[in-house]
Amino acid sequence: MSPAKLRTPSQSLIGTLAENIRRLRRERNLSQEELADICGLHRTYVGSVERGERNVTLSSLELLSKALGVSVVDLLTSGDK
Amino acid sequence: MSPAKLRTPSQSLIGTLAENIRRLRRERNLSQEELADICGLHRTYVGSVERGERNVTLSSLELLSKALGVSVVDLLTSGDK
Repeated sequence: MSPAKLRTPSQSLIGTLAENIRRLRRERNLSQEELADICGLHRTYVGSVERGERNVTLSSLELLSKALGVSVVDLLTSGDK
Repeated sequence: MSPAKLRTPSQSLIGTLAENIRRLRRERNLSQEELADICGLHRTYVGSVERGERNVTLSSLELLSKALGVSVVDLLTSGDK
């Protein structure tokens, strides 16, 4: 596949998501592995989301938001909630 | 792949997204094909998103939100904005 076919979200959106997940996870005293276990996702996947490396799907956003006790919109909104 | 491996977003989230895209597209007098062209997505893809059949990625959400002149959060928020 040529690079032109690969789409990635903007750094601002993906950075907001990454920051929110990391912040909320730490506030809940969860490791990446513990959060991943709650979600049924892989530890390395959660790590890559927190590094802003993933073009996350709605279903993964929903799993993460439920595990963290917030809404999908909260995860994508910048600034403290 | 077994069905258990396929994740889908909740109907409430995907339904909100579908409704918002359809409503905003019509408000802007765009056909599905015209919206798809602006986004660089396929017409049938936009149709399937509006039918709530897609586990949309952040990058596609961003393309659709920019084409419709709203934020990704707006697309995922229920009720009139």
